[in-house]
Amino acid sequence: MDLSLHVLVDPFALSEESLRSGVQAIALGGATVVQMRSKDRSTRELIDGGRMLKALCQKYGLAFIVNDRVDVALALGADGVHVGQDDMPVSMVRTLASQLTVGLSVSSLQEVLAAEASPPDYFGMGPVFATASKSDAGPAVGTSKLREWTRVAQAMAPVVAIGGISLENAGAVWQCGVNGIAVISAVWQAADKQEACRRLREH
Amino acid sequence: MDLSLHVLVDPFALSEESLRSGVQAIALGGATVVQMRSKDRSTRELIDGGRMLKALCQKYGLAFIVNDRVDVALALGADGVHVGQDDMPVSMVRTLASQLTVGLSVSSLQEVLAAEASPPDYFGMGPVFATASKSDAGPAVGTSKLREWTRVAQAMAPVVAIGGISLENAGAVWQCGVNGIAVISAVWQAADKQEACRRLREH
Ligand code: NI
Repeated sequence: MDLSLHVLVDPFALSEESLRSGVQAIALGGATVVQMRSKDRSTRELIDGGRMLKALCQKYGLAFIVNDRVDVALALGADGVHVGQDDMPVSMVRTLASQLTVGLSVSSLQEVLAAEASPPDYFGMGPVFATASKSDAGPAVGTSKLREWTRVAQAMAPVVAIGGISLENAGAVWQCGVNGIAVISAVWQAADKQEACRRLREH
Repeated sequence: MDLSLHVLVDPFALSEESLRSGVQAIALGGATVVQMRSKDRSTRELIDGGRMLKALCQKYGLAFIVNDRVDVALALGADGVHVGQDDMPVSMVRTLASQLTVGLSVSSLQEVLAAEASPPDYFGMGPVFATASKSDAGPAVGTSKLREWTRVAQAMAPVVAIGGISLENAGAVWQCGVNGIAVISAVWQAADKQEACRRLREH
């Protein structure tokens, strides 16, 4: 899986038309992974909302990853699942669904080191910068720690930086040696999503 | 699986000691199934909270069923999963986890009939009576419709009545010909939980 550019998508925050044109634009711009993340939705809603997003990802050659929910990932035939520290442990995901690529959120060096017994396929590390998108994301890590922790983590798995990454600061994040970056508003609030993705990948 | 008496349990609503003594008491009183149901908990909390409840059920010979979450049911090695109309469709649960007993909530004749293409292992039918436990449960079905729908449903799978069932009205529910009843407050608010279960089974 090419981890270069993850775009987080909440299919319920967008009209069907915006979702279609948005996924096409980010694919053309060089996004490689879509992660579906929705809060407070029923299992049925996640499956129904995810079905269309999954189909769009397939059409445009993007990997499709589901946040938190292994059951929804399996139901949708997703490529992977992204788990946080409050979600299912990586070792348990491996047992239940060995076919899934597993991403793990880490926001401290301690969490990186704790992953050693059962490392994920990639780390989601952050929040690099302060962000309004995820109020429970904790304090910003900053580029200096990101660089340090990335070196430690990469002995186990590649690192995708996340949290407050914009067109302006993406270059500084890439310089930390990460394998990929993940964005939300940098793409979804851009007028030209294709161009935003292209520029986010520059480094 | 003996469906006679389901007791719904939220492990986060009880102290560890109350959970231990409560599960022992209901088992001695004749409960046969525990269904874990918790709202607004992270996946990790559900797994950690469920682990102890599952162990207690195993110790006392109770079947252990998880509400909604197929991933949590699989992670815990539960006997089954109970899905509502907003949860994963029964057919999908069968595909992902054929080993699980699957219960399906129905609250109308239409929902009973819609289950024909992929029937559950049991129906949870209700709410029989008005209930404060589940504010989103819809209007009370009443014993007259419960009796009618039960006959239709039983051509597909056994029926467990749920919703507002108490020591006082349980006899009238059993007279509708159901295969089992499910309770929450009738047990958890009883001073003597063992005796409450014993009396709920009388018919
Ligand atoms: Ni009987």
